[in-house]
Amino acid sequence: MESSIALIFDLDGTLVDSVYQHVLAWQEALRGEAIELSVWRIHRKIGMSGGLFSQALLRETGKSLDQEVMLRLQKAHAEAYHRRLGQVVPLPGARELLGCLSNLQVPWAVATSGRLETAAPAAAMLKLPPHVPLVTRDDVPHAKPSPDLFLEAMRRLGVDPTDTVVVGDSIWDMLAARRARALGVGLLSGGYGEGELEKAGAYRVYEDPAGLLRHLDELGVRALEC
Amino acid sequence: MESSIALIFDLDGTLVDSVYQHVLAWQEALRGEAIELSVWRIHRKIGMSGGLFSQALLRETGKSLDQEVMLRLQKAHAEAYHRRLGQVVPLPGARELLGCLSNLQVPWAVATSGRLETAAPAAAMLKLPPHVPLVTRDDVPHAKPSPDLFLEAMRRLGVDPTDTVVVGDSIWDMLAARRARALGVGLLSGGYGEGELEKAGAYRVYEDPAGLLRHLDELGVRALEC
Repeated sequence: MESSIALIFDLDGTLVDSVYQHVLAWQEALRGEAIELSVWRIHRKIGMSGGLFSQALLRETGKSLDQEVMLRLQKAHAEAYHRRLGQVVPLPGARELLGCLSNLQVPWAVATSGRLETAAPAAAMLKLPPHVPLVTRDDVPHAKPSPDLFLEAMRRLGVDPTDTVVVGDSIWDMLAARRARALGVGLLSGGYGEGELEKAGAYRVYEDPAGLLRHLDELGVRALEC
Repeated sequence: MESSIALIFDLDGTLVDSVYQHVLAWQEALRGEAIELSVWRIHRKIGMSGGLFSQALLRETGKSLDQEVMLRLQKAHAEAYHRRLGQVVPLPGARELLGCLSNLQVPWAVATSGRLETAAPAAAMLKLPPHVPLVTRDDVPHAKPSPDLFLEAMRRLGVDPTDTVVVGDSIWDMLAARRARALGVGLLSGGYGEGELEKAGAYRVYEDPAGLLRHLDELGVRALEC
């Protein structure tokens, strides 16, 4: 059964339950550089590009981060996250949703602001088939909210923005989706509030992948059964 | 300088930056009982009474928790949280805000759904003066969103609900404030979205205690300087 719609998924907070571990890993990394930032502020910056994150940090803390410090931070965050990886699992319905799309021959891809280093273990948990594009920060010049990641995923899938739904948990996903001219759909499973996602342009907001799977028809996917 | 307004503060996410540690400590405790719940769902239940939390768990997981399991969960959560306590610090502006209120002779208190066991270390970080009421789950029959904690704090301060502002980071604080007939003010520092707090009845929403301190006049506190 052919569908005219393609789906591109963010990874952390959208398909795997890893946001809070990422947040506390960033807190640990920042403290290693004597940068104290409230945890909720880190949470609201997760998923945006490192360069913008660094700008945001400058505004919040008054500290300017040079390239060397940013690289140390990235390394410390990756280490701190890997230590927490044992707690991370796929979100409810994630595997079922991806399996359903594959069965329906709906093209889908994953696009994350993270590096392959931190994305690969999450992709492994989801058992991504080898033909499914996994686009990471290593593949494009700019991460979210720039549209590059989603545009690259569309290029690999061979689909148009107007036929694409971007599914993410953060406002950076929704902003990048708009800039890519795709439809944004929000999930609450990354810990953002419904209003934040709607204000950023989410066309629909579901609780988690299981909620999205139950409402695939609302995105124009003709899924009588998977 | 005398003011006619009293303030009652929630603790976790409102005065100390401890919500994300509590959330992951609950995840760890629940997994010890083979209960798998997404982290964002735990986040949205934090600060509500244990009995209601147990009901919510039943809805989400289909598992009913008897009194014995609830006690084991509480113990495991307290242990897991204490292991994370080294990461917890006061929120920006918390000490300054409380010191300012004391200087202005504005009556204030702290009221938390947590037990004294987990609240005491946070209270110590804030250096609560001995005359300031600290009302915990141990002092009242029902925790938030029941109004008991806030009503008990008002009783100890000798103030009326209509002269009281309740400051909290969760919708349970805002609901309990309404039921206590007090004015609710929300803070984003616990990781809820602004819209969630406003929908639950927050009269104003600030980022954190530092933001509230800069806008004390909006609550009717006559604070030309502290």
